Amino acid sequence: MTDPNPALAGCRISVNAGAGPLVKRLLDEADTLGVSSSLHHGGVCIVDAGVAARGSVAAGLIVGEICLGGLGSVALRGEGASGPSGWPSWPSWVDVHSAQPVLACLGSQYAGWSLAASKEETGGKKFFALGSGPARALAGKEALFGELGYRDASATGVLVLEVDRVPPPVILDKLLRHCGLQPAGLTVILTPTTSLAGTTQVVARVLEVALHKAHELGFALGDIVGGRGTAPLPSPSPDGVQAMGRTNDAILYGGRVHLTVKGGDDAARALAQRLPSCHSRDYGRSFAEIFREAEYDFYKIDGALFAPAEVWVSNLDSGRTWHGGATDMALLQSLWMEAA
Amino acid sequence: MTDPNPALAGCRISVNAGAGPLVKRLLDEADTLGVSSSLHHGGVCIVDAGVAARGSVAAGLIVGEICLGGLGSVALRGEGASGPSGWPSWPSWVDVHSAQPVLACLGSQYAGWSLAASKEETGGKKFFALGSGPARALAGKEALFGELGYRDASATGVLVLEVDRVPPPVILDKLLRHCGLQPAGLTVILTPTTSLAGTTQVVARVLEVALHKAHELGFALGDIVGGRGTAPLPSPSPDGVQAMGRTNDAILYGGRVHLTVKGGDDAARALAQRLPSCHSRDYGRSFAEIFREAEYDFYKIDGALFAPAEVWVSNLDSGRTWHGGATDMALLQSLWMEAA
Amino acid sequence: MTDPNPALAGCRISVNAGAGPLVKRLLDEADTLGVSSSLHHGGVCIVDAGVAARGSVAAGLIVGEICLGGLGSVALRGEGASGPSGWPSWPSWVDVHSAQPVLACLGSQYAGWSLAASKEETGGKKFFALGSGPARALAGKEALFGELGYRDASATGVLVLEVDRVPPPVILDKLLRHCGLQPAGLTVILTPTTSLAGTTQVVARVLEVALHKAHELGFALGDIVGGRGTAPLPSPSPDGVQAMGRTNDAILYGGRVHLTVKGGDDAARALAQRLPSCHSRDYGRSFAEIFREAEYDFYKIDGALFAPAEVWVSNLDSGRTWHGGATDMALLQSLWMEAA
Repeated sequence: MTDPNPALAGCRISVNAGAGPLVKRLLDEADTLGVSSSLHHGGVCIVDAGVAARGSVAAGLIVGEICLGGLGSVALRGEGASGPSGWPSWPSWVDVHSAQPVLACLGSQYAGWSLAASKEETGGKKFFALGSGPARALAGKEALFGELGYRDASATGVLVLEVDRVPPPVILDKLLRHCGLQPAGLTVILTPTTSLAGTTQVVARVLEVALHKAHELGFALGDIVGGRGTAPLPSPSPDGVQAMGRTNDAILYGGRVHLTVKGGDDAARALAQRLPSCHSRDYGRSFAEIFREAEYDFYKIDGALFAPAEVWVSNLDSGRTWHGGATDMALLQSLWMEAA
Repeated sequence: MTDPNPALAGCRISVNAGAGPLVKRLLDEADTLGVSSSLHHGGVCIVDAGVAARGSVAAGLIVGEICLGGLGSVALRGEGASGPSGWPSWPSWVDVHSAQPVLACLGSQYAGWSLAASKEETGGKKFFALGSGPARALAGKEALFGELGYRDASATGVLVLEVDRVPPPVILDKLLRHCGLQPAGLTVILTPTTSLAGTTQVVARVLEVALHKAHELGFALGDIVGGRGTAPLPSPSPDGVQAMGRTNDAILYGGRVHLTVKGGDDAARALAQRLPSCHSRDYGRSFAEIFREAEYDFYKIDGALFAPAEVWVSNLDSGRTWHGGATDMALLQSLWMEAA
Repeated sequence: MTDPNPALAGCRISVNAGAGPLVKRLLDEADTLGVSSSLHHGGVCIVDAGVAARGSVAAGLIVGEICLGGLGSVALRGEGASGPSGWPSWPSWVDVHSAQPVLACLGSQYAGWSLAASKEETGGKKFFALGSGPARALAGKEALFGELGYRDASATGVLVLEVDRVPPPVILDKLLRHCGLQPAGLTVILTPTTSLAGTTQVVARVLEVALHKAHELGFALGDIVGGRGTAPLPSPSPDGVQAMGRTNDAILYGGRVHLTVKGGDDAARALAQRLPSCHSRDYGRSFAEIFREAEYDFYKIDGALFAPAEVWVSNLDSGRTWHGGATDMALLQSLWMEAA
């Protein structure tokens, strides 16, 4: 389906060009950041940010900015204020900000490119990953790109995969073909969710999750003109389900997003009222628990759950701001910390 | 009036040279930041950061640093802590910091250069703006520069105007003449207060407002040796009075400033006690309401109102710190947010 | 004593090379930062960041990153949230983050190189300082370097000294000889604790203090893989004991540190329980008072006191996080602020 008024029609910004200097920095500072790289498949650069390499939160912040196509900032911030009685305030937060939220988050950061290979195709284990980051916009394989009206053109591309092994040749072939890249032009960054970098770059999706939910609610993407968000950064778990659960919980119960929109007040007010995660029937329990009850099938989980906890929506055309939802830091701390 | 001991005597720093790399960045990243530029009047670069162009908060942060002559940082920060009962804590804050607060804020950022042209002079609508930013220090037209004992010399200059149209030729002529610049050496940035960039760069004046009030109170500017401040960032209003009101309210009711001074303890204590906005007879109501009651005449408003809500003053010579005032976030939230 | 499994065995990162661009920035922006430099002893660059020069908080932030060998970030942050009743929340905080905490903090930042010269050696006043920063790793004079298994090799080096005068020739000779540097290759930065830069760069040791205490508690340094911390920034005192007291108090009563470790849960839990400063018998009074009672003899003070107020320890191998301690901002504010 192609939107008659695509949100990004005429956009001249290249998300892959924007990510280039950040990829260079990740490689230049590899030792300090705890990442390593190697060439595969005739020249594809594979960056290990958390498989055999340790990786780091600092690497995850850079990967977060790479995912945004260089069109936003991802920063770590402390907090010193005392929390409400009973729990200390959480010490580490990730701030995200973009002046081009639709392009940065949906045109680049969103993990929307389904990459699968069967045992027969790989000659070994089957492979599945959801590709995120700028190279999605070179391939344009998702219906979303038709709605956005955006397609990137660049001789270099970078994709982020939340997996713990190098993609098999059949997948690398597919990436190169669909992106129209030579092997030396492609960089693939591996960040398992169980790693420091992986957890960090997923929490850095707090703004993207708000945009995705806005899209699901039918809000016109072209009317979203600014966005910023913050979420608490948990420590990763070595268990894949727990690790994924924590990053989701950080956003569902700790995420705070401020969207700036234009258009009508009714749409802006409805967005603020309907966007927060509290409107899901699954709200209030840990994501890992919900996922287990859904028998590890994402499609059984209420889609309304995937949203930040708290949202502000400001309409530039009227100057009005609406607020919805609330964070539940006590729940997060009970999930993330051992009892004293 | 020229101070016998001007605060910036012998200062060798060029605020226009300091702003240069930031102006370049604003232009280099114009598409991402949502700004546009065009040449006028034989080569003057006019940057539209919120008139026909959308602009952005990110553009406003850079304009804020340009206003400080490259001598300070302006950064966006989230906040995750829960607020007091009844209201959520405000999500977005602007942090300002300068190691040269008098030069950066009063020698450059302060909107003190009155630029007016009559209908006869423009051949159309009359024009009025208060110029702010580094180019003020090339012209040195304000009495304040005599007190500061500072004058910049540079082949390039940049001025910020909170207006919604390109200044008429008579004003551009005046700028070039008083700044001693060739047209290609002058950049003028337009940031209406009703725009995202405009609101952001005004809130980034939280430290400057404190310095201006200190000056009004007769505190010796040469004794102010450091400063930092923070203020909540509201969403702009399309209504000019409301937009200006919000940026003022952000500082008057949400601004927190820490000044580092030298000299006597009596002066430092008195500064902390007298500086905060709460000492104004107009304190407690929205600036837009106060402005309306003053029949839109700035000179009827109590000058003591123009100050941050809360202040710390530390005297390096004694090691003592005094505190005055308090923020009123509940008032701001009632002004800035629609009822739930 | 050399650890059989040194924490940094095989480390290829040069802390002196990492600090190089930051030293260049300190010199390039000397006027803005309020620092000055001069050449001594055949070419050694001495940077005055708070003796005759005023210095600044901004200079202290850069010195903090220099101390970390370019392997971490030191940033100033405001806070806008209201504090608990009775006291406003503290306005200025220093955030520290490193992906290489053991190397950055213990291999570089720790003030561990004892530099003493008698009256006879100096031909004047006796000299004593504890050297901190990257050049320590060129000299490797401390037993700690044997335990770390790290030694830097670089043609340039930088050392930070919390003193108020240029080190005498006998000390500069010693530095050059032990570091294996030519005079033009050595930079020495002077930051008295009574100065803005001095206070700032000491508070930026909040993470280092946690690592040092972990080491004292016998925790395996090689198991510490990430760290971040925050602490409130006080204003300096012109009195040396008070100034040192405030920077210590900032960490002991206001410091919050999150360490990421690997290994066993018992060790991680014990670290969280035992690390905070509250486990010292001296906890609860100002450091200046404790120091006075100890008759200004550091060795009489309980070593357990030197720790952040509050700590989180996350074990990557189990995914568990423990918490210990608490901040006491009311104590800090009573120590740092005059009564209203």
